[in-house]
Amino acid sequence: MPIDKVKMQKLINPRALAVVGASDDPGRMGGFLLTGLLKHRYSGKVFPVNPRFEAMEGLRCYSKVSDIPEPVDCMLLTIPASQVLSVLEDGVKAGVPTATIFSSGFGESDAEGKLRQQKLAEFIDSSGMLICGPNCYGVLNLADNVPASCNRILEMDYLPPGPVALVSQSGAMSGAIANRALDRGVKFSFVISTGNECGLEVCDFINFLLDDRRTRVVAVFLEGLRYPEKFLVVARKALDAGKPLVVLKVGRSEIAARTASAHTGALVGSDLAYEAVFRKYGVIRANSVDEMVGLMGLLSQGRHLGGTGVGTVCLSGGAASIVGDACEGKKVQMTRLAPDTITKLKNMLVVMTDADNPVDVSGEFPGHPEAAGKAVQILAEDAAVDSIGVVITTPTGAMGEKAIAEVIEVGKAVPKPLATIWLSGSLVSHHMEMVRREGIPLFTEVGVYVSCLEKYSWYLGKKQSYSNYTSEAPNIVDKSSVWLGTRKFPSTYEGEDILAAYGIRFPEGVVARTPEEAVKAGRRLGYPVVLKVQSPDILHKTEVGGVKVGIWSDQELLEAYQEISRSIRLRAGSVAIEGILVQKMIRGGIELILGISRDSQFGHILVLGLGGIYTEILKEVVARPLPVSRADVNEMIEEMRGGAMLKGARGQFMDLDAVIDAVVSVSRFGEDMGPRLKELDINPLLVLEKGKGVYALDSLLVFD
Amino acid sequence: MPIDKVKMQKLINPRALAVVGASDDPGRMGGFLLTGLLKHRYSGKVFPVNPRFEAMEGLRCYSKVSDIPEPVDCMLLTIPASQVLSVLEDGVKAGVPTATIFSSGFGESDAEGKLRQQKLAEFIDSSGMLICGPNCYGVLNLADNVPASCNRILEMDYLPPGPVALVSQSGAMSGAIANRALDRGVKFSFVISTGNECGLEVCDFINFLLDDRRTRVVAVFLEGLRYPEKFLVVARKALDAGKPLVVLKVGRSEIAARTASAHTGALVGSDLAYEAVFRKYGVIRANSVDEMVGLMGLLSQGRHLGGTGVGTVCLSGGAASIVGDACEGKKVQMTRLAPDTITKLKNMLVVMTDADNPVDVSGEFPGHPEAAGKAVQILAEDAAVDSIGVVITTPTGAMGEKAIAEVIEVGKAVPKPLATIWLSGSLVSHHMEMVRREGIPLFTEVGVYVSCLEKYSWYLGKKQSYSNYTSEAPNIVDKSSVWLGTRKFPSTYEGEDILAAYGIRFPEGVVARTPEEAVKAGRRLGYPVVLKVQSPDILHKTEVGGVKVGIWSDQELLEAYQEISRSIRLRAGSVAIEGILVQKMIRGGIELILGISRDSQFGHILVLGLGGIYTEILKEVVARPLPVSRADVNEMIEEMRGGAMLKGARGQFMDLDAVIDAVVSVSRFGEDMGPRLKELDINPLLVLEKGKGVYALDSLLVFD
Repeated sequence: MPIDKVKMQKLINPRALAVVGASDDPGRMGGFLLTGLLKHRYSGKVFPVNPRFEAMEGLRCYSKVSDIPEPVDCMLLTIPASQVLSVLEDGVKAGVPTATIFSSGFGESDAEGKLRQQKLAEFIDSSGMLICGPNCYGVLNLADNVPASCNRILEMDYLPPGPVALVSQSGAMSGAIANRALDRGVKFSFVISTGNECGLEVCDFINFLLDDRRTRVVAVFLEGLRYPEKFLVVARKALDAGKPLVVLKVGRSEIAARTASAHTGALVGSDLAYEAVFRKYGVIRANSVDEMVGLMGLLSQGRHLGGTGVGTVCLSGGAASIVGDACEGKKVQMTRLAPDTITKLKNMLVVMTDADNPVDVSGEFPGHPEAAGKAVQILAEDAAVDSIGVVITTPTGAMGEKAIAEVIEVGKAVPKPLATIWLSGSLVSHHMEMVRREGIPLFTEVGVYVSCLEKYSWYLGKKQSYSNYTSEAPNIVDKSSVWLGTRKFPSTYEGEDILAAYGIRFPEGVVARTPEEAVKAGRRLGYPVVLKVQSPDILHKTEVGGVKVGIWSDQELLEAYQEISRSIRLRAGSVAIEGILVQKMIRGGIELILGISRDSQFGHILVLGLGGIYTEILKEVVARPLPVSRADVNEMIEEMRGGAMLKGARGQFMDLDAVIDAVVSVSRFGEDMGPRLKELDINPLLVLEKGKGVYALDSLLVFD
Repeated sequence: MPIDKVKMQKLINPRALAVVGASDDPGRMGGFLLTGLLKHRYSGKVFPVNPRFEAMEGLRCYSKVSDIPEPVDCMLLTIPASQVLSVLEDGVKAGVPTATIFSSGFGESDAEGKLRQQKLAEFIDSSGMLICGPNCYGVLNLADNVPASCNRILEMDYLPPGPVALVSQSGAMSGAIANRALDRGVKFSFVISTGNECGLEVCDFINFLLDDRRTRVVAVFLEGLRYPEKFLVVARKALDAGKPLVVLKVGRSEIAARTASAHTGALVGSDLAYEAVFRKYGVIRANSVDEMVGLMGLLSQGRHLGGTGVGTVCLSGGAASIVGDACEGKKVQMTRLAPDTITKLKNMLVVMTDADNPVDVSGEFPGHPEAAGKAVQILAEDAAVDSIGVVITTPTGAMGEKAIAEVIEVGKAVPKPLATIWLSGSLVSHHMEMVRREGIPLFTEVGVYVSCLEKYSWYLGKKQSYSNYTSEAPNIVDKSSVWLGTRKFPSTYEGEDILAAYGIRFPEGVVARTPEEAVKAGRRLGYPVVLKVQSPDILHKTEVGGVKVGIWSDQELLEAYQEISRSIRLRAGSVAIEGILVQKMIRGGIELILGISRDSQFGHILVLGLGGIYTEILKEVVARPLPVSRADVNEMIEEMRGGAMLKGARGQFMDLDAVIDAVVSVSRFGEDMGPRLKELDINPLLVLEKGKGVYALDSLLVFD
């Protein structure tokens, strides 16, 4: 159901607010809200509602909302949970279109609270009132100066409006993240806490923010999604709109998932599925509060990151080493400076004689505090430098202040992303404040700075490649012609037939019903061969001794045939055996795993990784939601551990095109099969040298 | 050369100081030093030296050191580099035993500076004066209140003495790290900056600190080691003394190494060798400033970490999810609480109804701010909880203050490690200050907290297992009997003979000189076999087509023999061929790489990792300096990617004992070969099922 835009506007930017449960004690939520509105000079009308007062903070106080003689755009409810529903009904009577329910005691609490939330949901359905909450900090709209929130950052003196919006399911985390971000020079358009999301939920707000012209970056603290499909829509919209979506998604682990679902009642999907969706739609994942805050700063600076070349200026040689280390193994790199740049740096330095990247200006203090700023200028002129970081230790006193002032002055004019990285603490708080006021991003760890740059750069690449995102595999089969019986899984050769119809190649094979047939097949195929028992009742053939590999002669084949038969009788009992598949054995190559699994939230997820025993050793696969395009596969191989091997490490080029074909075909297969498909595993998918293709050596299909 | 203890005492804890280059301007180094000594009430005597002044800060000022009428323990030199040597010589005349040279313009600068440092080294040799520096911040001795340093933390008001010592080669980093550590509740005995280390170097100070009874934790910011062998001695001593050594080692990357060597002139060894040494001797490696500071806090709290069970109390449900995520895949785990603990928590909570670990007390605010403290108390009583973290968002105001005060009050009495993790910033700076003053560690990221706990726990395990550290392999061969010719590398079978003498098993094989001999060998060994060309001139057999695997018949063998001969003629030209090794082919198992390489600093380093193509895919090996004991190997397998596979994942138990035997034997081999051994690679080392042992399938030996 689309959100009524007029109502949304009244919730987000109300011109008349009723504070229900208003108080003259700022220690209470109703008092904190009222104080915040007045202190930050909200320009709309404020109507305190509290039957126990005549007036409050110089404003007339009303007994109930329907007593207010003027139209009210939005009610802010801070009363006990038990009173919420009757106040909302009174609001409907008075024609109030929207409300934010700050009160807790709903779905997040006991059985009574859960019942209460259910009644609230029914009220929303029937009344059409637009509601934020309950159990939330509400919408802090800094773009229009509507401080209708109990977010503690309203206690801060300096809240300049800016281009970053934060949406958080957790109220406390919205306060913590925003506070740290403000400390680090980030400026906000909105800070929104959605709480229990009985009415509006996180995607509704993201959607609104993507349309808001003051907002350029949307950051989300996410515990779980009520409507995963809505997230897919807003994620795509964000990528189209060129507004980065930064998400700190918690609930990776089982314990965290338990906590998160206890907290918001949202379903928490498997982390791999989230990761797959984020990767596909260019959602930037932050892994810590500092990373989220750092990304907010870099992305909102309004400067273009042209590439992966990092330039840094360090106020200490020791710090310079930290920077070099932090770039190790990253996709952004300490750039090699042009000879001209090095000459310019050497000419500029007074005391120091060496110049390189990182530029170490430590020796210039205290005599030449302007060196840091000059170095920033010179780096900015080098085409190989795409971003500039200034790493700061303890430049206290007047000289330090001068150095920082110069960096700020030069930094304001530089067109490339610029950030400061502070390795000390309270000794330089005054200098940090100078930088913060100018909106230059502040970091406190070099590693976080570099990883934020890397993610920023990944996002830009993603934005560029996004146009290629169409499903490219031709629809080569009639869906109805494929195996769609009632059995939950087809036997190996049945599965192979289905997948073969999608262009997946299996080694040549024959199903034998007798040892004699098997020997005939072995001779025809040519040794070595592999034997695999065929039965719709056996899910894992290896576990019951149903597979023999490396058979090199008639004699070995007969022995293997007998052994399999014996083993099945012994270990699997009386199952239906359709025969034994004799298959040509393919040797060499690199083993991958390629499969599809079905996520409860995002549906089919395709996974790719190193195969064989290494799947379990590494426990690392890359994933994408279906459909998966050729461009997707290229990115997946880029992300994949060992992906470089496929592209031709060790002088041996593997058949990368065939891998891409296979993955895209499997994706199309998954789409065609639809929701009945529960699981597909091709393991190993053997990748041979360039031109020799890939073989699926074993496969497992499970349907519902 | 051992350091003279009496002189060391005079440098570290001088009772009379000459400040050469003293100034009345605190903006100058000589002024900063003098001000610091007076402001922090140094109890010894201070003699300013500056020919341009009669008096300074109420003290008589001398023209030169030899004019001072009383004995001076230590000179602090802040004069230009060009004057340093003559002042030192004047000091010798006056009988001054020690000096700290703060001045820069030595080895870290231009050719003239390098020459100056060389002369300084000669002066030190001839005079026997004990010197710290040049180009350093000196020794800040807080244990005895000797603020003889230009470390900027002397600008801080609150510098209580405590159990942590910091030694840093970089002066600026010593200031930055110490400042952040002090902000986070850490208390120092010493903060030492060693600079160019022309005289005393980092290991001399570590050694001193290990003997100092006030110091319980030694933290080191390390760029490189001048005397790696001294580091091995102090690392072992630290482990024996039970004083954790925490090292932030920079110069992992090539670029950082270049910067670091430019900066201090120290040799920067390969990072793997450092890692190997750290792992062996229980040196705790910090990977960032925050991690280093966090480790200082936890390790110096004087509380015992009993195990890996983490308990946390969260002031926000959202924060609780972050904690769960942070423990994912770590060796410390969010612990399962006893039923009794959960009952106690539920009884204690007033508003909230659920209780689990992490304990979410968010709903108790603002009415019951004491809940956080009570939860800490209850967690502390649970035997499964080994450490307690309190995760704090934005508890502002009086209620927040009360909550924090309760946590502090309870926390002081709790016997388990306790830390606070602050996810916001300036809004709670007052509360952070309360915690800081009590010396309770403060963190700003949950991930850093968890990783510090993990490292702390690793260190305790290491301390416990250290008693097993002896070389255990019997010396099974006479060293002189092994191959020690003049060639740089033996051919495969020669190498195999040497290694076989150490108990390394190779597949059975015969060197054939003709196709006929080869076929005879093939039949005797039984197919399948492998062929490998034997030549002392061919280092990498595979690259010249000198290896054929999977030969199953006489026919295939003859073809393979011919193909190898052809290929060698074609690709290697006229090299000396000693024959072709026919070897039994061993199938199945897991491939490892086992080898030794020679590091320029630490000598022979043994490496172990997943083998075959995965060595290159993973680029991950674990390492130890020789000798490697059985206990070492067990730890290496624990650290190793895929190590779990060896210990019996997937229901298949591999021959772990045989792996350990092989590694210990290779270690002994390396010891016996001595410095001539340049490189040994056994790849793959095939590990079979339990009881079936391991096989070295290929080996490469390089001598000098």
